[in-house]
This record gives sequence, C-alpha cells and structure tokens, in this order.
Amino acid sequence: MVERVVFFVSDQTGVTAETLGHSLITQFAGQNFRQTTLPFIDSDDKANEAVRTINAAAEDAAVRPIVFSTMVQPDLREIVKTSAGLHLDIFDAFLQSLADEFDEAPEYRSGRAHGVSDIDAYMKRIEATNFALANDDGGVSRNYDVADVILVGVSRSGKTPTCLYLALQYGVYAANYPLTDDELENGKLPDFLLEHKHKLFGLTIAPERLREIRKERRPLGNYSSAQQVRFELREAEKIFRRYGIPSVNTTMFSIEEISSRILDSTGVERRVRP
Amino acid sequence: MVERVVFFVSDQTGVTAETLGHSLITQFAGQNFRQTTLPFIDSDDKANEAVRTINAAAEDAAVRPIVFSTMVQPDLREIVKTSAGLHLDIFDAFLQSLADEFDEAPEYRSGRAHGVSDIDAYMKRIEATNFALANDDGGVSRNYDVADVILVGVSRSGKTPTCLYLALQYGVYAANYPLTDDELENGKLPDFLLEHKHKLFGLTIAPERLREIRKERRPLGNYSSAQQVRFELREAEKIFRRYGIPSVNTTMFSIEEISSRILDSTGVERRVRP
Repeated sequence: MVERVVFFVSDQTGVTAETLGHSLITQFAGQNFRQTTLPFIDSDDKANEAVRTINAAAEDAAVRPIVFSTMVQPDLREIVKTSAGLHLDIFDAFLQSLADEFDEAPEYRSGRAHGVSDIDAYMKRIEATNFALANDDGGVSRNYDVADVILVGVSRSGKTPTCLYLALQYGVYAANYPLTDDELENGKLPDFLLEHKHKLFGLTIAPERLREIRKERRPLGNYSSAQQVRFELREAEKIFRRYGIPSVNTTMFSIEEISSRILDSTGVERRVRP
Repeated sequence: MVERVVFFVSDQTGVTAETLGHSLITQFAGQNFRQTTLPFIDSDDKANEAVRTINAAAEDAAVRPIVFSTMVQPDLREIVKTSAGLHLDIFDAFLQSLADEFDEAPEYRSGRAHGVSDIDAYMKRIEATNFALANDDGGVSRNYDVADVILVGVSRSGKTPTCLYLALQYGVYAANYPLTDDELENGKLPDFLLEHKHKLFGLTIAPERLREIRKERRPLGNYSSAQQVRFELREAEKIFRRYGIPSVNTTMFSIEEISSRILDSTGVERRVRP
C-alpha cells in the first residue's frame, strides 16, 4: 500500500486540524497514512519552514502529501498553501459563509478556540478533573450532592477514563463507584448511592472484552477468570434493571462515544465547550 | 446582542462537529451563541427529528440557526440539510477532494473516527490514563523508565490535568512530580528524577494566577500567600535553569496548548491520534 503523508498544520495547537483530518481520512481504508502535526505556525518564518517540511516529504514520497490546516490568519494560510500538498483548510471552507451570515468580519485571531481566553472555562475543567479524581473508584470524598452523574459498574468497565474525559472535555462533574462483591451478591445498592438514584448511570461490557482488559492488569487468578467476570457482569446488569438505572455497553465504543451517550441519555449539560 | 442558536449534528459523537464549529464561531465576537449537540443521528427517523428540532429553534429565533454537521452517510446528510439552518458539513466540503486525490471511493461508514474500531488505540489510551494516575503527584509507582515525559512544577501549576489530557488524547505516558519544600530550598532534584533528566519538562505559571487557583482549594494560610507563591515559583524556575529543563509558562494557555507545546518541544511521539 502506498504511504500517504498527512500534515496537520495550525497556528495554534493543531487539535482541530487533527480531529477534522482524522474524521476524513478514516473514510479511506485503501490508504496507509503517516501523520505529522506542525503546531504553532504563527509567523512568516514558521509558515515558510512548514512549507519546506511539506515539500521535503513530497519529494520523498510517491504521492503528494495531504495538508489539513486551521490557519486563522489569511496571510500565513496563503504561505502554507504554496506547498506541494493538497491543502484543505476549514477557515477557507467555512469562514466566509459565516461572515456573510453574521454580517460581521471575522477577527482572524488565532488561539481563540483552545486558548485560555476563557479563564473561567479553564478553571471549570480543572475543578471538574479534581472532582473526578477525588470521587474516583468510590473515593473518599463522595461529594455526590454536587455530582452531575455517578457511573457505576464492575472493575475495569471504563468508569475512570470516562469520568476524566467528561471532566476535561466538558467540565462535567462525574463520580464513579465500583460495585463491590457484597453488592453484587445481595443485589442491593448502598443508601448513599440510592439517595442520588437519578444521577446513576451504569457501564457494562462484554465478558470476553473485560477478561482481556483485566488480564493486562492481573493475568492470573479469579479477577480475570471467565467465571468471575461473567458472574460480576450478570449481577451488575441485574442491579441496573432492578433500580431502573440507564446503562451503556462499552464493548464497541470509544471513550468519546461512551461520554456522548451518557450526556445524551441523561441530559446532563456540558459546563464548557471544547 | 442577538442570540444565535448553533447545532452540532453528527451520526456519531459530535466531537468533531463541536471542535470544528467552536474554532469557527470563536472568530466572531459580535454574536451571542447558544450551543446544542445532537449526536447519534444515524437513521432517517432521527435525522427527521433533528430537522424538526432545528426548525423549531429557527421559528423561535430572530435569525436562522447555524448547523455544523459531520454526517458521513450522504442520505442522512441530505435530510439534515433540508432544515431551516445554515448547513456546514465537513464531508460535503472535503470528502470529494480526498476521494479524487486517492482515486478511491469513501466508505461512508460512520463511527470510524471515534469508534473503537481500533481496539488497540482504546487500550493504549486506557493504559496511558492508568499510568498517569499511578504516577500522579510523585505517585507511589514512579515507573519513570517507561514514561514518555515527566512534568515537574509546584503544586497547582497544571501538571495533573495536562498528564491526563496527554494520556486520553494521545496515549502518551506522562508522569508528574511536584517539587517539595526541600527541593525548592536547596535547589536540587532527587537522583531518581535526574536519572531521567532528558524526560523532565517544567511547568511554571504567573504568581497572581497561581494564587487564584490555590485560593479555590485553600483560601487561607501560607499555601496561597503572595510570599509563598512567589518563593516557590522563583525557586522552581531556578531549578529548571540549573538543570537545563525546558519549561512552559501555563498562565495564558489552555490544557490543549500546554500539551501541544510539550509534545512539540520534546518531540515525544503521539501513540494514538484523536
């Protein structure tokens, strides 16, 4: 398969260019992509250097590179566009339509999307992250009064990364509580959780997948045995049904998907926007 | 200021539509935006319901809504496009250019970008997150041999959220170590850190900003006093200079920017792509 070099070029972090480009290139299974991010291209010199980097890759390759760019400043964008790559820029594609619609000239200021211009949003994300850490794994704090959502599930069902993602991406206060052997055996949730029943959301997962994940952590013993894993998941799902707790099976989902499904299902509002 | 309703519509999570749309609308300071995400629009019925939601917003508002969409499937995209909003879709804008360039028809399969289609990437992100948690705050593990980067800095300089973001977004193994009073006073780093000197990266921050952040946690006492904060930051920066540790001042940066600057400065490779 021919290797296709892909550049994500930005006058800021490159996160938007990466996200956009990734959504597009994953539609083409017949290509083999090598991806490089060139962030902080915020001067003529750096833009010219980016062009040299792209052109060098073009000379080494059988096919021309693809350049996904998010260059706010038109003069720098024009420099990057002189490269030998196929150049796709979101500001080129969409900014004029919005300017016409709003009847307002864009500011052409870089760093507004992921800049700390909004200190308040930064603080909210940090505080939500601290909340997730303090309320991880049934944590000591149990500040469930201020939680937006409390994830429940067996060990390694994806609770912690999901809580952290909800915090970092959306500023949402997500706690998580791992179901204990006691709870799985008697099928009852503790009162301190039931007080917040409307905030509970269950995570479940296919037994085979959970075994793989647990084996990474502890290859031997009951923790990752087929019998134990099946028992825990069956009882957890019974608990969700018993109390009417909405749940999602995380087997085929990424962290982004699990998070989006939780927000969509619960109606919890994003406190910040990425 | 007129309120402008913005929809992010996707047959998947909506993360790409949110990221793209946010980059664009933040260029217009004269508008007041109200943002709503409509994820998992993956059937005719849901697409028609999304159109009804958008049209209802259009009727209530003085100006038409903006619809940022990432609808992979052309037939669903066509339904969404019948809404009364201004419709901007990245697949409309870019997919054909790429198909022509690759001489390959796109798969039109949704969920490839943030799907768990790549189980390996999911596992890498989870493992990196577990690594960050185990090696947080100078943590018990200190698995610095396998760390990609070790962030050092005073308490509340942004180390933990940055490590978690690097793990969740890029699968990078990031540990962090808070400088202790002892180290700040004698200006020396412990041997277990110096063994990995090439992995160290410093975070610093403006004293006023750090005070604000610390006051959120502990309003009174030495921890958030002007004198203490200035002392710690001055000594931390001396340590960075003494050992030639690259550093970034996080005062005006978001978590995304801090993370991108670390990757850019250290050359640490992303293990997964968002």
